[in-house]
Formats: sequence, structure tokens, C-alpha cells
Amino acid sequence: MSELKLTILGSGSALPRGDAFHTSQVLEMRNKQFMIDCGEGAQIRMRQNCVHTARLNHIFISHLHGDHCFGLIGLISTLGMLGRTADITIHSHPDLEGLLAPQVKYFCSEFPFDVKFEPFSPYKSEVIYDDRSVTVTTLPLKHRVPSSGFLFEEKSTERHLVKKMLDAYEVPMVQYRAIKAGADFVTSDGEVVPNHRLTTDPTPPKRFAYMSDTAYTEKHLDLIHGVDCLYHESTFLAEDAARIKATLHSSASQAATLAKKAEVKQLIIGHYSARYTDSKVFLDEARAIFPNTHAAFDGASYLF
Amino acid sequence: MSELKLTILGSGSALPRGDAFHTSQVLEMRNKQFMIDCGEGAQIRMRQNCVHTARLNHIFISHLHGDHCFGLIGLISTLGMLGRTADITIHSHPDLEGLLAPQVKYFCSEFPFDVKFEPFSPYKSEVIYDDRSVTVTTLPLKHRVPSSGFLFEEKSTERHLVKKMLDAYEVPMVQYRAIKAGADFVTSDGEVVPNHRLTTDPTPPKRFAYMSDTAYTEKHLDLIHGVDCLYHESTFLAEDAARIKATLHSSASQAATLAKKAEVKQLIIGHYSARYTDSKVFLDEARAIFPNTHAAFDGASYLF
Repeated sequence: MSELKLTILGSGSALPRGDAFHTSQVLEMRNKQFMIDCGEGAQIRMRQNCVHTARLNHIFISHLHGDHCFGLIGLISTLGMLGRTADITIHSHPDLEGLLAPQVKYFCSEFPFDVKFEPFSPYKSEVIYDDRSVTVTTLPLKHRVPSSGFLFEEKSTERHLVKKMLDAYEVPMVQYRAIKAGADFVTSDGEVVPNHRLTTDPTPPKRFAYMSDTAYTEKHLDLIHGVDCLYHESTFLAEDAARIKATLHSSASQAATLAKKAEVKQLIIGHYSARYTDSKVFLDEARAIFPNTHAAFDGASYLF
Repeated sequence: MSELKLTILGSGSALPRGDAFHTSQVLEMRNKQFMIDCGEGAQIRMRQNCVHTARLNHIFISHLHGDHCFGLIGLISTLGMLGRTADITIHSHPDLEGLLAPQVKYFCSEFPFDVKFEPFSPYKSEVIYDDRSVTVTTLPLKHRVPSSGFLFEEKSTERHLVKKMLDAYEVPMVQYRAIKAGADFVTSDGEVVPNHRLTTDPTPPKRFAYMSDTAYTEKHLDLIHGVDCLYHESTFLAEDAARIKATLHSSASQAATLAKKAEVKQLIIGHYSARYTDSKVFLDEARAIFPNTHAAFDGASYLF
């Protein structure tokens, strides 16, 4: 199982700072790329950080605030100019299609690929993407407009064959597949070789949870428990209690509290209010509760 | 008459480079700001270059290719969050309203200002903006879609009063207005003091021409003759003849040739193809024909 790689294209919030563009990330998982949110300038940050798009086929939009989706039309337009031929699918709130499809039709009509819209309900947790190696599940959040997080999960792989044991027992190759799936091996003498002598456990599947704009909520604690990496918005500090309440955002300490309760392996915070010019204050606040926290910045990459 | 100031927000073309965003400029003229084109990331560049928007009420979009207009919705959204209350008017091809107004309605419905659309015909040159000190005239161009340049012109001001002469002739203040407008003064003795003894000529009005995406055309030579500054797209070099023909763009040498024939005071080139990583090749080509050329870069400002 390969490592996952998360690249932060934009770590800012509604008002961009010069060094912190609007929210967008790219997750690389099982040789595929998934874009999560696409604020204005995402395509520029991709270019600046040499994030290529050949394996990008699915974009997940958490909610319809501009700082999470205004970069879509520019990205799609650029993909077309770069010679893309594969369709691209946008998973989002149902309203997006009516807002974006007319622009795609007008500006991108000559492109040899389709932009497909896959709406999901922001009110229930459900699997919205499922291929042979990855699933994506929505995590409905609490925000001023319907907002959803996403849980990206690798599927379990087969058991790893131990070649020297297979050779020692002279296991025919035709049986490898069954043994990877857990079968024992019976020798020509009738001896049963238990599977655990021929294989080792599969690498545990990796999991990444993305908690987009939201007031503090524990309703997905079970689903995100123990994830390899949790991204959680951290728009304010704990001292901004009135703003947190008015805007339905989270503080760094709330993000860290959720990470601690969910026993995640690492926390990445971002979506900082433009009121703050340095993300260190967010990092300090979060680390006091959950030490293994990283403060996202534009262009940062994380392997896990 | 104050100087004009042109700030380049984006100097790139259809495919952005990391350091050259899509096309956008802000012209400051007579204590007003006019935005010319608004590619993706224009609002970010405004923030990075401390271009404030209090005096920005009119945006002019040359044509409906994404690299000239995809930044509008993000800019409008940010203006709203920054507490703007004054309406903003977008002058463009008629199709823009149908594409952008639904997004404005969806994302910006709570803002206390209106976004007004003022469509213009891209097929005829006409005055599309006229206030007491500035006019803007369209300059229809030759491109793959209807495209238009713009000529920004200051109106003539009144003559300058020469205070010591007014005092010497004991001119009553009540007559200053008429004298600024060119009237002679008649003393109590009946002596006629000609206006030119009491005033000096007004500062010549400044003019800026913006030639957006276009194949080479001389059809506006008369209108732009002698402008204080000409911005002309320069997507390619002369050696890219096939691309110039296929895309209906201009080379640096064509931009310079027009500047020379129109006897403009200075030329600024931009909208470089992403094929080139250094604008110096464009500058060298243009200066061989028109020495007073500047190569635009993101964040550059020009006073004239």
C-alpha cells in the first residue's frame, strides 16, 4: 500500500491573504488524485507547485461558498487547453450544476471531454464514490449553508505472499490468488499448510478525513476514529467565541479537541481567518490539546 | 491634472504561469479606479499589491474568454465581504449577464449593493462611459470571439488662473469662473484684459488605450493616435507566425509597429503565451521597433 499525499493549494478562508489562497487540496491515493474544494486560484497553485492533473478525475466540493468553488471554471478551462480528453466528475451540493454548467457550456464547448455533475445530499452520510480501491463517504457538517466533509478510505488489499515459503512448499503459481485471499495450501502429501505460514497481513488501509467549514461537531467521531490524517478547518482562535458562534466556524482548539477525541494519528488545520497574518497562533493553540498538529500553508505537502 | 496610474494585476494569457496571472489591470484616473478585464486571481493580486477598491465602480471586460473574466465573481464576493455599499457596473459583451448574474444572485444575495450589467456592442466603436471628467470608448478588435479594446480619455479641464495677475487687475472672485472658461476681463476703467494674460493653458488631457486580444489591426490608428500610453497584447513573437494566424493574436513586433504608427508616447506589452518563461524576449523584439516599450509583469505600476 502506497503512502497518501495531501497537497494544500489554498489554506485561507473567505477573504484571501496574499500568501493564503482560498481553500483547495489534492489528495493522492492509490495512484489517483482527488481534488477537495476548488477556491479561486487553485489552478495557479497547482502550476506553482507542479501538481499535474493526469490522474485527476474527481473533484469533491464541500459546500457552495465561493471560497470553496470559484476556481472550478478556471481549472476546467485550463484542463481543456492542456489537451485533456477524460471526463471529469464534480461531486457537490445539487445547486452547483445550475450555476456552473451554463459557464462550462459557454466557455468549454470545444473540449473533447464532459464535465459530469454528481450531486449528493448534504443531510445524510453516504458513500458517494466507490471504486476497486477507494471509497469516499460524506460527513454532513453544521454551517450557515449545507456543508459536508469527506472521508477517504482505502479498501483492504490482499495478504502479502512470502515468496521463500511458497518456494519451500513448491506452491504452484495458479494457487497464489487463492492464498492471497486467505486460503490454506494442501501439499501433494496431503499436508495442510496454514495460510499464515505463507503470507503476512495486508498493510492496513489508510484513511483521510476532511472536515470543511463547520461549527464544532462530534457527530462523526465514530466514522473518523483513528484516521491516519484529519484535516479540520480552524478559522478562528478560542478567544473569538462570538465570531465562532455567529459564523458557525471552528477554533483551533475545537479542531484539536475533535482530533484528540477521535484518536486520529495527525491533525492538519487551515482555513485561517484573514484577521490573522501568522498561522503560528493557530498551531500553538491546537498543539496544546493535540500535539501532532500541522498548520497548513499554501504549497505544503503531507505524506501519511 | 493628476498623473494616471496603471497597475498590472495579471500579465499572462490563457494558461497562467506561476508568476503571471490571467489578464487584469486597474487604471487610476481623475481620482477614480477603472478595472480592465478580470482574470482569475485578480482580487488576490489586488491584495498582494495593496490596490484598494474604494474608488472602483466600473469594470470593463474586453471579451468573454475565461482568462479575462473568471475573476469577476470572486472579486464581487470579496467586495461584499469587505463592506462595500456602492453599486458596481460591469461593461461587457451582452452574454456576460446571463452567465454571471445567476452566480451573483446565489452567492452575493445578502450584499447591500447591486451588480449592474451594461452591455456594449463589440461591433462598433462607441462611447460607453461618460462622466464629468472621463470618457471610455470601445475599440472593436479582431479575435476568435468578439473582442474590444478601450480608449480612456480625460476631458479638458478649465484654464489655470494666474493669481498674481488677477490680484494686479483686482479681478473680483465672482468672475473667476468665467475667466477659467476663457472670458476676458473688463476693468472699471473699461480696459479689456485678454484672457491669456490672466490664465495659462489647461494641462493636456491624458489618454490611455487598451488593445486586448486581437490580430494586428490598424483600424483604430486615428483614435489612439498620440495616446500617453498604449497597452497592447503581445501573446507571441514574430517567429510564431502560424500560431498568430491560428489564434488571432499579436506578436511583440506587431504591438510595437502599431505603437510606432500611432505615435504613442509609450507602449506596454503583456498577455504573454505560457510557452515563454521570460518576458525579455518580447521586450527585445518590441524595442527594436518602438524603443519606449515596457514589458508588463504582475504587480507592475506605470505612471504617465
